[in-house]
Amino acid sequence: MSRDTHTLPFGVFSETPDGPRRVGVRVDDLVLDVGALDLPHAADFATASLNAFLARGRAHWDDVRARLQELLAQGTDHLLPLAGLTLHLPVEVADYVDFYSSRHHAENIGRMFRPDSPPLTPNWTHLPIGYHGRAGTVAVSGTPVVRPSGQHKAPTDDVPTFGPSRRLDIEAEVGFVVGTPSALGTPVPLGDLAEHVFGVCLVNDWSSRDLQAWEYVPLGPFLGKSFLTSISPWVVPLAALADARVPAPPRETPVLPYLDDAEHPWGLDLELVVTLNGQEVSRPPFAQMYWTPAQQLAHLTVNGASLRTGDLFASGTVSGPERDQRGSFIELSWGGAEPLTLADGSTRSFLEDGDTVTITATAPGPGGTRISFGEVTGTVQPAR
Amino acid sequence: MSRDTHTLPFGVFSETPDGPRRVGVRVDDLVLDVGALDLPHAADFATASLNAFLARGRAHWDDVRARLQELLAQGTDHLLPLAGLTLHLPVEVADYVDFYSSRHHAENIGRMFRPDSPPLTPNWTHLPIGYHGRAGTVAVSGTPVVRPSGQHKAPTDDVPTFGPSRRLDIEAEVGFVVGTPSALGTPVPLGDLAEHVFGVCLVNDWSSRDLQAWEYVPLGPFLGKSFLTSISPWVVPLAALADARVPAPPRETPVLPYLDDAEHPWGLDLELVVTLNGQEVSRPPFAQMYWTPAQQLAHLTVNGASLRTGDLFASGTVSGPERDQRGSFIELSWGGAEPLTLADGSTRSFLEDGDTVTITATAPGPGGTRISFGEVTGTVQPAR
Repeated sequence: MSRDTHTLPFGVFSETPDGPRRVGVRVDDLVLDVGALDLPHAADFATASLNAFLARGRAHWDDVRARLQELLAQGTDHLLPLAGLTLHLPVEVADYVDFYSSRHHAENIGRMFRPDSPPLTPNWTHLPIGYHGRAGTVAVSGTPVVRPSGQHKAPTDDVPTFGPSRRLDIEAEVGFVVGTPSALGTPVPLGDLAEHVFGVCLVNDWSSRDLQAWEYVPLGPFLGKSFLTSISPWVVPLAALADARVPAPPRETPVLPYLDDAEHPWGLDLELVVTLNGQEVSRPPFAQMYWTPAQQLAHLTVNGASLRTGDLFASGTVSGPERDQRGSFIELSWGGAEPLTLADGSTRSFLEDGDTVTITATAPGPGGTRISFGEVTGTVQPAR
Repeated sequence: MSRDTHTLPFGVFSETPDGPRRVGVRVDDLVLDVGALDLPHAADFATASLNAFLARGRAHWDDVRARLQELLAQGTDHLLPLAGLTLHLPVEVADYVDFYSSRHHAENIGRMFRPDSPPLTPNWTHLPIGYHGRAGTVAVSGTPVVRPSGQHKAPTDDVPTFGPSRRLDIEAEVGFVVGTPSALGTPVPLGDLAEHVFGVCLVNDWSSRDLQAWEYVPLGPFLGKSFLTSISPWVVPLAALADARVPAPPRETPVLPYLDDAEHPWGLDLELVVTLNGQEVSRPPFAQMYWTPAQQLAHLTVNGASLRTGDLFASGTVSGPERDQRGSFIELSWGGAEPLTLADGSTRSFLEDGDTVTITATAPGPGGTRISFGEVTGTVQPAR
């Protein structure tokens, strides 16, 4: 069987857990040691993050991609077995923005958190709602998920109590990694997505629903999210995803011109799979996201906010219309009212200590192949 | 008159606008070129940010401070006139968190934004509400304030329109700069503020009230804030502020143990002054903030979120109970209903193109002196 020399995702590895970190490109179960190759700006690859490479921009990314494909076609000795390597956070994250762009997710959350109001706030179909998260707690897949403690207050309680979160959850998302920066005061138009975004990773935006419910009015989620966000170790280049592009679902509300994507459809047909302790619990369809990454980028910068190399923006929880397409446990268990029954007969509403959640994804590649995004995984540890 | 060798604020300067940047310490109208001195880890000061110095922690900060005071007492040749220097962003900002800790401000905003609800949300007296802002658009004082464009919708409109913000505002705040990092999963107790926070700067969190009003439900402020946050070029060491410490105002609601600051009062008696085009419009009293920086830090990390060198957390708008103590124009003009009358007879509700806003502050120093925090200033430019 021939090797996948199309996807060529970038990551950071070391040969021993604490050894020097350098950039690698995954080829099936091997990793290409790109710093050892005769490539332009080879020193970029002898660093502990992709940032130096990312900062060089689209023309360079495409040039390196073409050279790697050529080298792999010729054959190279610089392939290491993936199994023996330690993988690290691929990007030094500058700013982290989390959007909220699945209509099904937003409606589900709205129904649960604000039962007396319409499920979508009036702004939802006019702009991709988003907020800034904590860049310093974005970590690589496999980082332990220490159950956070904090304040929670049930509606029936008079005052909040302090203790470990009782409603620890996931958010299955897709992340976009910015390479080319932009200048303060200058919006990035929607058609320029590929000039600025290098590639795509998987994101699990771990969430504490009880902390979040008590804190989030009026300024949004804070400690309910900031304890950890996990990302996959491999960033799949946007250049590999030509066959995955699809139009976004029809929008019932006309959008303002800066969000009009008729000429730049950037829906992506990624199929996510969420497993809990090895059992599949959901298949969120990314193709059904209401707002595309191109619209998110245009919105994020329309006020003149600048981009930096290493900025990460995530889609928000990916949920489809069906129950088994929901990308969070609060939706899967409908806030705990309808627990999931697992294969061993136990039930689950939110995560328990020892639970492992893994998110994988694939997308259409050339000639009927499937592109793999690898995985983002984490295991819950008891509160400290 | 003797020089102020007590405050010793740190910043980053260059001798020509584009020349090499290095660390300096301000002494009245002079700047001590600390990289030229015989100090431990002198290479830290030959860099473009304070981060390397900040990362070394409290014992080193105190040691350097003592040596600088000794050197200044002996006399040194390494003093440059401030007037000829260019000042730069002093810190490479890691994560930026903005709190909302003035009761008067929160009540004023609540009355205007949510007139049908109690002015404070039920969580407000139980925890210091905060959210993450955009670290990449924190800029040094003097950076032009390009009027942002975006979506706004008046309550009487059916759909949003796009255009320059019509309600451009300031938020007069005080910022705290983290030096010593903390480990993921390990909360920082309230008593450890001085172990982690190096010093204090002034912050103007420029805000677009019309963008903010339309976007902020349910996930909080985003584009209404992310276009620019300005900070003063000089970071005043916490070590200089012993005489400014005061207890916080009485709290009517008991706080949970991790927020109990009875043994660690970290109120600070800073008196801010806000001027518009040279005319004083407000004197916000920082001593009246309901939540202290020590409580903010304890809250920020209680869920296990880690700190990084360069993290910046700001107080939220500082407003006192009187009209002329309000730290934003939306409060000063009560949402435009009560415009300010300026000295030239004109009126002002929100900022106009060409307006310059400057925030200064002083605090009690040793022996009845006043410590100066310098200033953070910015001039509004027309939308592009």
